[in-house]
Amino acid sequence: MSASGNNRPIGVFDSGVGGLTVVRALMERLPLESIVYFGDTARVPYGIKSVATIENFTAQIVDYLLRQEVKMLIVACNTMAAVALKTVTARARGIPVIDVIEAGARAATANGPGGRIGVIGTPTTINSNAYARRIHALDSGARVYSQACPLFVPLVEEGWLDHPVTRLTAQEYLRPVLAEEVGSLVLGCTHYPLLKPLLRDVVGERVRLIDSALTAADLAATRLREAGLSATGAEVATYRYIVTDVPLRFQTIGERFLGRSLGGVDRVDW
Amino acid sequence: MSASGNNRPIGVFDSGVGGLTVVRALMERLPLESIVYFGDTARVPYGIKSVATIENFTAQIVDYLLRQEVKMLIVACNTMAAVALKTVTARARGIPVIDVIEAGARAATANGPGGRIGVIGTPTTINSNAYARRIHALDSGARVYSQACPLFVPLVEEGWLDHPVTRLTAQEYLRPVLAEEVGSLVLGCTHYPLLKPLLRDVVGERVRLIDSALTAADLAATRLREAGLSATGAEVATYRYIVTDVPLRFQTIGERFLGRSLGGVDRVDW
Repeated sequence: MSASGNNRPIGVFDSGVGGLTVVRALMERLPLESIVYFGDTARVPYGIKSVATIENFTAQIVDYLLRQEVKMLIVACNTMAAVALKTVTARARGIPVIDVIEAGARAATANGPGGRIGVIGTPTTINSNAYARRIHALDSGARVYSQACPLFVPLVEEGWLDHPVTRLTAQEYLRPVLAEEVGSLVLGCTHYPLLKPLLRDVVGERVRLIDSALTAADLAATRLREAGLSATGAEVATYRYIVTDVPLRFQTIGERFLGRSLGGVDRVDW
Repeated sequence: MSASGNNRPIGVFDSGVGGLTVVRALMERLPLESIVYFGDTARVPYGIKSVATIENFTAQIVDYLLRQEVKMLIVACNTMAAVALKTVTARARGIPVIDVIEAGARAATANGPGGRIGVIGTPTTINSNAYARRIHALDSGARVYSQACPLFVPLVEEGWLDHPVTRLTAQEYLRPVLAEEVGSLVLGCTHYPLLKPLLRDVVGERVRLIDSALTAADLAATRLREAGLSATGAEVATYRYIVTDVPLRFQTIGERFLGRSLGGVDRVDW
């Protein structure tokens, strides 16, 4: 059963389960839109693989989603956005492409030039320097302070979202960034939105938290409208989840990210 | 340059870097023995993969090490030991095979029957129930209390070996096991020996900590002697490290596990 025209789904993809935070934001921001989510759970994590391998995997996912007749692609994986965005746009056959790094960089520079911007992410994302480059492309006068937070992903996957261990870890990681008196902090990993209440406590009220799941959904809304591709509402929005493996605790962790029941999950065998 | 007879190397393998704790224990326990270490760093972690995939990967590594003319195989990976040991023994062409689960189970039951034994490990190892099965095969009257500790591996890889966050995490994970008044605690993951000083503080002096890296080295010494395969000392012991990818911070993390300089690391491209 395939939808046509404006009621085709949005394709969202990630190396694993984290991109479901983007799906959640899309569901809330754009309730008429259908979504196909692809999580490459058999080959996660991408961050430790070579660029050539990440490009190959990315191409395979993009081609798969194009066969599902998606009308837009959202790269909900910081690693793919950092090292394989050209692979996505080259294969996208002209449909709009959005990625979490672009979304975060745009939001971080939206309050005017010369801001002091903190960026947190996994070691791979931070070492790629992709956020700093994209922020400087939009505002060459911005000051960017980056900090890798390797324990945040395992803490989120453990479900310790409001736990003394997580609080202590956040205080330690964020100390150097806060010392630079940043005005905003980009949550540069799709796992981090689940830590937002705790991070809000740690950074205080004066720092603007930039949630790249929310900003990606906002950017998707704008681009769909500009391209005349918004869903009409004539068909009920549908949600599909496709993974390459169903790992331990996938349902539990997935539903925590999505904020609701996952329903059916399909597995493809690559 | 290949050694012959008793001076052939011992083959040690793991899905990643953790098995270097076993190499370290072997170097100290058996200084005359040469070692070839294989870490499948491009495909780590194994714990989230299917049994068929783990068996395939295991077979590939065993065949590679046999081509290096090893005289003994040590499975320094709890996941492979739990689900693919038969694959190893079936391909080993009669050379002795040791694995970390056997070594840990033997040490845990060495103080006589009916013990109260705690086992900690990754979620995959604990859910496989492999330690409990191997302990009960040696002592059907033993009581086994298991606890998954998913944050210990990321904490070790972050280098927070003596950190308040790690201490708080250990206190939380170990509370239910300690409440059972265990006499010994098996460190059922090759990363955990690095946490031994901190775990010693948390569990107190009365609980015996069983380090499966040390016990595997002890078992290797016994089996080599029994099989008449101990190195003669006529050739200088050599150490080789082979990985399938050189991930971020490999050198730093590897040397932390090994307790000394890694020297050269070779990469094979699979």
